[in-house]
Amino acid sequence: MHVLILGAAGMIGRKLAEALGRAPVVGSHGITRLTLADVVLPATPPGLEDRTDCLVADLGQPGEAARMAALRPDLVFHLAAIVSGDAEANLEKGYRINLDGTRALFDALRPNAADGARPRVIFASTNAVFGGDMPDVIGDDYLLTPQTSYGTQKAMCELLLADYTRRGLLDGIGLRLPTICVRPGKPNLAASGFFSNIIREPLVGQEAILPVGEDVRHWMTSPRSAVSFFLHAATLDPATLGGRPNLTMPGLSVTVGEQIEALRKIAGPRAVALIRREPDPLIQRIVTGWARAFDPARARALGFVAEAAFEDIIQAHIDDELGGEQPGLRRAS
Amino acid sequence: MHVLILGAAGMIGRKLAEALGRAPVVGSHGITRLTLADVVLPATPPGLEDRTDCLVADLGQPGEAARMAALRPDLVFHLAAIVSGDAEANLEKGYRINLDGTRALFDALRPNAADGARPRVIFASTNAVFGGDMPDVIGDDYLLTPQTSYGTQKAMCELLLADYTRRGLLDGIGLRLPTICVRPGKPNLAASGFFSNIIREPLVGQEAILPVGEDVRHWMTSPRSAVSFFLHAATLDPATLGGRPNLTMPGLSVTVGEQIEALRKIAGPRAVALIRREPDPLIQRIVTGWARAFDPARARALGFVAEAAFEDIIQAHIDDELGGEQPGLRRAS
Repeated sequence: MHVLILGAAGMIGRKLAEALGRAPVVGSHGITRLTLADVVLPATPPGLEDRTDCLVADLGQPGEAARMAALRPDLVFHLAAIVSGDAEANLEKGYRINLDGTRALFDALRPNAADGARPRVIFASTNAVFGGDMPDVIGDDYLLTPQTSYGTQKAMCELLLADYTRRGLLDGIGLRLPTICVRPGKPNLAASGFFSNIIREPLVGQEAILPVGEDVRHWMTSPRSAVSFFLHAATLDPATLGGRPNLTMPGLSVTVGEQIEALRKIAGPRAVALIRREPDPLIQRIVTGWARAFDPARARALGFVAEAAFEDIIQAHIDDELGGEQPGLRRAS
Repeated sequence: MHVLILGAAGMIGRKLAEALGRAPVVGSHGITRLTLADVVLPATPPGLEDRTDCLVADLGQPGEAARMAALRPDLVFHLAAIVSGDAEANLEKGYRINLDGTRALFDALRPNAADGARPRVIFASTNAVFGGDMPDVIGDDYLLTPQTSYGTQKAMCELLLADYTRRGLLDGIGLRLPTICVRPGKPNLAASGFFSNIIREPLVGQEAILPVGEDVRHWMTSPRSAVSFFLHAATLDPATLGGRPNLTMPGLSVTVGEQIEALRKIAGPRAVALIRREPDPLIQRIVTGWARAFDPARARALGFVAEAAFEDIIQAHIDDELGGEQPGLRRAS
């Protein structure tokens, strides 16, 4: 099986490639070839050095989607996109890359279907397809009302994916990912960054800024779970999707206060003391427009699993990013 | 006020232009100029002969959207599209006209907003944005899961309209129209055609074919109500839309059996006897995938009104298309 990852240099794309390197099978199919593409050169994962090609490609440029499709992948993980803030600041760039790039990819893959090779395409969507006035818990039948251009572009791609899949041109599955927490790396300026910052930084003895109240509730999952969603989706029987190939992924609905209590349990009061309150009305207002909780019954019935407690999300970060230890702090216990 | 109707040669577009000719005001604004555009030359409506321009334009062709925007309309009724069967048979044509044409229009109008002239755009969407497994009655918060490329293209345009409206680039409102009944003109091959055929043809003494069972339930409104939806939308205060500019329009949920009973009441048993049962399993299957009823609470609260009984829909047809009389039959009463 030839697997193509688009957006392979991103955080989830890289972890997905590494997971395939550790276990180079998808269902009952061994991975015979792995192609990694991104706007910067992706890294070859350990375990697949002998069969990995790394490419620089920008789906938003003419001809690039056709170049990817000509590689005739059996399975495409499509995670390439510009992020929410960039798409909001740059209207045309966002539509060109996030909508036109995805559409160009789907269109380029269509002739493969006509040749009898209908590729499975796992598309990274987002819970930002929801927004505005919403119920406390959003069910699988709830209307998509994105309040950002990024969410709009992802929702439009979901519709295209469903139509092309219905027509037999692709074998598509869309995954609406929760906010990823704990995001590794440095603090960034994304409005959602603090959800990760207030855990990741104190765990290594660094201060983190909390710009919102502790009662803010949000929907999260670990990078590890996000990778597991893509791998699980790759093995699903399309007949189980009932003609609705876009799925809200499971996650954990927690308040900032509950995040902090979980940090206290795992890393003690010295870690919690590193969280500095600096209320930011703009971020508070943005965050208030985001979904707080979902009831992803369809995804759960299909076998997608996420963390059940925020302590598990912290522990996944400690295991996967800190080698099982907290460099800056002793364990509280 | 300069009003532009795109798709002005179509059935609803033509009736909309005629309604503006009868009452050339929108809210408190007189119509100073009317531009009618379509792929075939539209007709000038009586009452606005001195200020109407009729154009041939295909939004799916390069430069055409810019030509329309350069006319600097204050109010755009966008009804231009290829129909469901055509979009299903011709994948690329459907996306080019129904999606790219609409997007080109919205993009061409953006610079007008930058100049301080944010045009109101009333977009003709459809209840075909719903499909597949659905509840008996679909509420305003229900997920869009179109089962045709036409419905997909309309749903994608709704998202784009909402995003551009949120960003202040347009002042958009999308109207999800029910199936129009009674459609004037000759019987056509559209799968939904029989809903109109079984009323229109018997009223003029002609036979009509009924390809489905009498228990088939569907969501309909008259051409007269559809025109009233566009006119009402043109006067709405955008602040009342609560950030959700796409609205399911009111209609009437009736079974084929109820349609026939209404015909019997108005035109008598001789008319009903002209309906010939010829079951068509394909049409029965297609129709089963369509929405049966809605609870369009938002649109009703905003003042959109449709017929409350199918007799009213038949009477609207007799009044508007048959000059108040039935040429082929005497009244039953």
